[in-house]
This record gives sequence, C-alpha cells and structure tokens, in this order.
Amino acid sequence: MIKKISPLAPKNFPKLPLVKGIRMGTAKSGTKYKGRRDIFTAVFEKGTTVAGAFTQSDIRAEPVEFCKKNIIDGSARVLAVNAGFANAFTGKKGKKINKSITSNIKKIVKCREKDIFICSTGVIGENIPLRPTNKAISQSLKISENKWESAAKSIMTTDTFPKAIGRKILIDNKEVSLVGIAKGSGMISPNMATMLAFIFTDALIDKTVLQTLLNIELRNSFNAITVDSDTSTNDTVLVFATGKAMDDKNERIISRTSDSRLIKFREAFSEVMHDLAIQIVKDGEGAKKLIQIKVSGAENTSSAKEIARSIADSPLVKTAVGASDPNWGRIIMAIGKAKEKINPKKISLKIGSNTIIKDGEISRSYSESRTKKYMKGKDILLDINLGLGNSFSQIWTCDLTEGYIKINADYRS
Amino acid sequence: MIKKISPLAPKNFPKLPLVKGIRMGTAKSGTKYKGRRDIFTAVFEKGTTVAGAFTQSDIRAEPVEFCKKNIIDGSARVLAVNAGFANAFTGKKGKKINKSITSNIKKIVKCREKDIFICSTGVIGENIPLRPTNKAISQSLKISENKWESAAKSIMTTDTFPKAIGRKILIDNKEVSLVGIAKGSGMISPNMATMLAFIFTDALIDKTVLQTLLNIELRNSFNAITVDSDTSTNDTVLVFATGKAMDDKNERIISRTSDSRLIKFREAFSEVMHDLAIQIVKDGEGAKKLIQIKVSGAENTSSAKEIARSIADSPLVKTAVGASDPNWGRIIMAIGKAKEKINPKKISLKIGSNTIIKDGEISRSYSESRTKKYMKGKDILLDINLGLGNSFSQIWTCDLTEGYIKINADYRS
Repeated sequence: MIKKISPLAPKNFPKLPLVKGIRMGTAKSGTKYKGRRDIFTAVFEKGTTVAGAFTQSDIRAEPVEFCKKNIIDGSARVLAVNAGFANAFTGKKGKKINKSITSNIKKIVKCREKDIFICSTGVIGENIPLRPTNKAISQSLKISENKWESAAKSIMTTDTFPKAIGRKILIDNKEVSLVGIAKGSGMISPNMATMLAFIFTDALIDKTVLQTLLNIELRNSFNAITVDSDTSTNDTVLVFATGKAMDDKNERIISRTSDSRLIKFREAFSEVMHDLAIQIVKDGEGAKKLIQIKVSGAENTSSAKEIARSIADSPLVKTAVGASDPNWGRIIMAIGKAKEKINPKKISLKIGSNTIIKDGEISRSYSESRTKKYMKGKDILLDINLGLGNSFSQIWTCDLTEGYIKINADYRS
Repeated sequence: MIKKISPLAPKNFPKLPLVKGIRMGTAKSGTKYKGRRDIFTAVFEKGTTVAGAFTQSDIRAEPVEFCKKNIIDGSARVLAVNAGFANAFTGKKGKKINKSITSNIKKIVKCREKDIFICSTGVIGENIPLRPTNKAISQSLKISENKWESAAKSIMTTDTFPKAIGRKILIDNKEVSLVGIAKGSGMISPNMATMLAFIFTDALIDKTVLQTLLNIELRNSFNAITVDSDTSTNDTVLVFATGKAMDDKNERIISRTSDSRLIKFREAFSEVMHDLAIQIVKDGEGAKKLIQIKVSGAENTSSAKEIARSIADSPLVKTAVGASDPNWGRIIMAIGKAKEKINPKKISLKIGSNTIIKDGEISRSYSESRTKKYMKGKDILLDINLGLGNSFSQIWTCDLTEGYIKINADYRS
C-alpha cells in the first residue's frame, strides 16, 4: 500500500531543541516494515523522573502492563519502542517477550528492570519476532544521536507523517527544553490516554508533580480526540524529566505543583500535549478535515463531553463534513442519541460563524450556500450551545472518508 | 445518485397473503423523489387494535410524539407515511404539519384524531411540503388495492430494495395472516425500536397482548441490529390487528398472552419481526456482508449485549470483515473497550467454525488461510465465549465499505 500523506500534515518537520541528558538511537529490525527504521530507544541519565498514562481498555497489551508496574517507582533509565507488533493478547508468550527485551537491555545499560519502559505498537495478537528485534534494540542503544525526526518516524504504523513538537522556556534563568513525539492514526478514542506519545524535558521535576501535570493536561489533549471511536490496547503516554538543564548544586527540584517556577513550564507542556494530540487527529486514517466540536451551555462537564463525543463519533456527521454538506440534522440526531440532559427547544448550533439553529428553531439568517462554502475548508468548527447551564467541553476529530475504508481493509493483509 | 441494489437483497419480492380489514393505497407527492411513489396509507376497519415502539433518542420527531400519544388508546383507523422528510427538529412548524395532515385525513376517513398514526422518514430539519403531500395522501386514501410491493417501495429512502415478509397460520381453524413491511438502511442502532416497520394481521388480539408481544420480540429483532451506531429521531414500529379473519360471533378476542391459541401466532410474529430486522441490516448502507455476533459465557445478558454491540459498532472490525481479513485482534480490542466484566485469559473466539482463540491463547489448529476463505462469504459469524457465566446475547450488523461513505456523502445534497 502506498500511503498518501495527509492533506492536513504540516509542511515541514519542526526544528526541535536539544534535551539534555538523553541519548537516542533508532534501528531497523527488518520484521514488519522493510527498508525503514522501526526501533526507537532512549537512554536517560541517572535521576530522570517519569510519569505515565495508559489505555483504560480492559484488554491491555503486555508492554502497558509492564510500564504500569514500573511507573509507580517513577524513575527511568531506558525507553524502548518497537513498531509493527502490539504484543497485545499474546497469551503466555507476551510476558516472555518483555522479559527477553529487558534482559537484552540490561546487558547494555546497567539498570534495574523497573527503570526500563517498553512500548509496542502494531497488529494485535501477533508475536514480536524476538531475535531481529533484540538485535536492532542493541544496535540502537549503542547509538547516540539527536535526530528527533528519525525517532518520530521509527514509531509510525499507519501514520502518514512523523509527529513532533518542541518548546524552550526559562526556569530560574536556565534554558529548559521540552520535546514531544507521538504516533497514532487509527484506533483512536482515548480513555485516559491514547496511542504512543513520549515527552522529554531536561527540567528538574519530581515524579509526583510530573504525574499531576500529565493527568491535568490529558483532558484537553489525548482525552479530547477521537478518530474512529475504537480504543487501542496499547495507548501510552510517558513523560521523562532528566533535570539536566537545571542540575547544578544550587538548583532545587520542583516538588510542588504550585511552585511558581512551573508557570511557564506548564504553559509549554500544555501546548506540547495539545499539539501532539491534534497532530494525531490531522493524521486520522483518511482524514481530509479537522473537526472541532464545542459543546457549551451544558448542565455539567461530563454531560457536555458525552454529547461532544456522540457527535464526534457519529459516522453520519463525519461523512457529511467530509462531503462539505451542512446536513445539520445529523448533528441534532447525535445530540439526541447521547442520552444526556437536553431540551430540544433550547439548543443552538453554529457551523463556523454561521448560525443555523437558535433556541431550537432554524435561524432566519441561515444561509446553506454560505455554510457549504465554509465547510469546503479544512478546519471545521461545530459549535453547540445546549442552553441549560454553564459547563463546557470540546473534542477534536476528523472526517470519515473512503480513505479510512481503504487503509483499514488493506492494513495487515 | 444511482443506487446499486445490495448484494444481500433477496432475489424476488415475496408472495404475501391478504390481510383482511385493510385498504391500502400509495401515491406520488412529487416533492423529494421525482417519478416514484412516496406516500403510503392504510385504512383499517373499526375494531382494529394497535401496539407500538419508538426511538429512545431524546430528540424525537413530531410524528413519533404524535404516535406515542395515540398509542395509549390502542385503537387505529388510519396509518399515513411519507418518505423524504423526517419532520424532526422542525420547531413550532412540526406540530402544525401533523395537524394539517390529520385534518386532511379526517375529511376523508371519519375517525377520531387518536385513531390516526402518522410516520415520516427522511431528512431531519426540513419541513414537509404540505400542499403536495396532503394532495397525495388524499389520493392514496381513495385507493383500495392489495399491493404490498408498492407499499414497501413507497416508504424507502436510502434503501436499495423493498422489505417485506408474510406468514399464514391457523387460529381456531381460521386462516390468519401476518404481513410486515419495513424501511431502513442507515442511522440504524435501535434503542427500543428502529426505523419504520409496520406489521399487519387480521388476528383478533387486544391492544395489551399486542403490545406485550411487540415488547418481547423487539429484543431479538429491531433491538439486535446496528448498521452505523447512529440512532434515528423517527424510529417507529407499529403493529395493527384488524381481527377480521376471526371476527364472527363465536370468536373470543385474545386477551391473555398465555392464551394457547397464540402459540403459532407468536412463532410467526417472531419470524416476521426478526426477518424484517435482518432485511434492514442486509440493506445497510454499502453493506456487502451480513455479520452475526454471538457473545456467550457472559456474567449477565446486559454485559453480553454491550460487548456484542461494541464489536458490532467498531469501524475497525467492520472494515476488516469487509476486506475478508481475519484481523481478529480488532475483535479483541472491541471486547476490551466495552468496559464490561471480562477475563482475557478465559476468552474464546471462533469465526464461523474456525477456532482462533481458546481460553485466551491462539489455537494450535488456527488456520488463517481457511478463515480467510470462510470470510470471503456473505454471511459471517463472530462467535465469542467469555468463559465467565451462562448469559448470552446476539446482534446483527453489516460490514463498513466505501459504499457507506459514498451514500452518506451524496445523500441530501
């Protein structure tokens, strides 16, 4: 299958800062993907803290179980990622695969098992071919390079472009960097977190604060996107903080979320998380349009979120947007099927700045031709006000096109 | 748009029995669909009982509200159906439209407003053009014919074939008939009932028994199907019993569900309900395969149902089946995302008679090529055993193909 790059992809891979305290490497295992790198490893200097969030599916891949166990300790030395095989639902072999990979890593990097984080992505149910994978992991661990693009590319599966973003900020007059990479395109409807995303920083932050920041930012990033309503068995977000940009004798580790030194960092961290999540939607399988769904005027946030998700996951809404058709009745249908508190007579709906429904009635100023023209664009806003309260939620998704069917009929076989 | 007839459509329209006590008619309103009949009416003799089930969406079309009110009384004289406009989310005009239609009907058939049942299907948010619709309703009410095919065709929207089924049985040595017609193709994920379905019988059954039978049979018919996970604002099932096959002086009306005279009738009624529901799935937008999903070994029925529905609504499972790809990891994924009680180590999975997973491990006898060959067929069974208890549920859906996208991008605009 020849992949067409998503029309929503950024023109260029971004320029990213150096994150101190990390050695990275990539390699080719030659297993699922021929002629491209499919292994990514990072080795962190001692003292690196880590936070994580994982799929809420009841069928979790072996690497997820492994990382969930290790995240408790909160310290990290090695991250190893393979693309092509999910190591999910692999029965007794699944644990053995992790064991073999960690033994291999420990031979090269002297560290405890709980300092190792393994992530896998790809087809569910197939076993990772161990010999070539371990060989490639060994190779990559011996490399020390600063090639974010190579790293972001090596973790791709059905992705059509590598996803990354970086920020620089000052903490105590020290320049601190933040870089995130992610992969994801289908099986995207997160429950707590989604797909694979790795964020690296050289700020000096303890594991508890790091975990709190991650939990807070999930809501408007990886938990606010859906491509196809399907939830991966392997969804993982990991944040690593090496501390090496601030690591001198006068530096105090940030150990309180309320620490004023965090203000700029939190802003940057929020941007990185949100941007990675949106990049995943922009690479949604077959996507031609990014759709933002705002639901305001709800009785409570959870109700706003459920209604936004019901619209975002409706195949009829998504195909209408794909066809630039202001078939707003389908949006109304999706509000109705959410089974949340609504009053049809109080609903208002705008597509972009075009008012369609005001207080349950079609607006006199509604122009279908003007709305259709707006919908021919690549960024579509569906703006719903329920007219019941002050709560708000938003979610991002993409349109449903023939490309989605093509990709998912072809993938694997 | 030229519609290709579903490859799952029956070869011929079935031969259907006469149902005594009904005068039917169809007509062309010339509004949405040019050159075809889009109005269907039936006039019932006095004494006809009626039962109904309706969408559970919180946004209900005006005709649904109207029928829900009238069903309480349980007697029927007129059914009037229009295709092309849903009369849903039409604000204050919605009620006026119903008022105008009923006034028009009452001029021709002398009856009470609560003996009239109106059903609409089509685009949400657009108003029914009243003058041509009322004119066509008047025309059709003056016709008396026995053309089930014409009736079934007149209520179609994105359907590619007319849906009908009939049965004859004996009650007290009297020949009693049952005929059902239905329409539905997209926006199909019922909550209590779905799309439009009308069942007619000349058995003599009171309204309470009729309603009980309908409620019971919904579970394995209209409530056990999904095409696209979207729920219509207009879903309605109505059952009319004229009593005219049994209507002589010695006949007692069936007024208890336990009446032994009902045994054969219930069997036939169940077949009619189930068959109509399956015909809707077979005409699912873009459908090339019928998928039956059985979930057994669950702790309770509701859990089995939720898991079956999670699989049935997964676009990734549906595209894999469409491509005849035994990508069983996606079925496992969909089990996991349902958030119901499971134990991955106890799950077994068969596709047709091909065992893939036994007690959480891939079966030694699993043959991908044999399974792929089976999946090239038109009838696909996904058979899951959770290994936890004795509860069972099943659901029918169809594959997700490029046809779905084409139909739903084209529809309306």
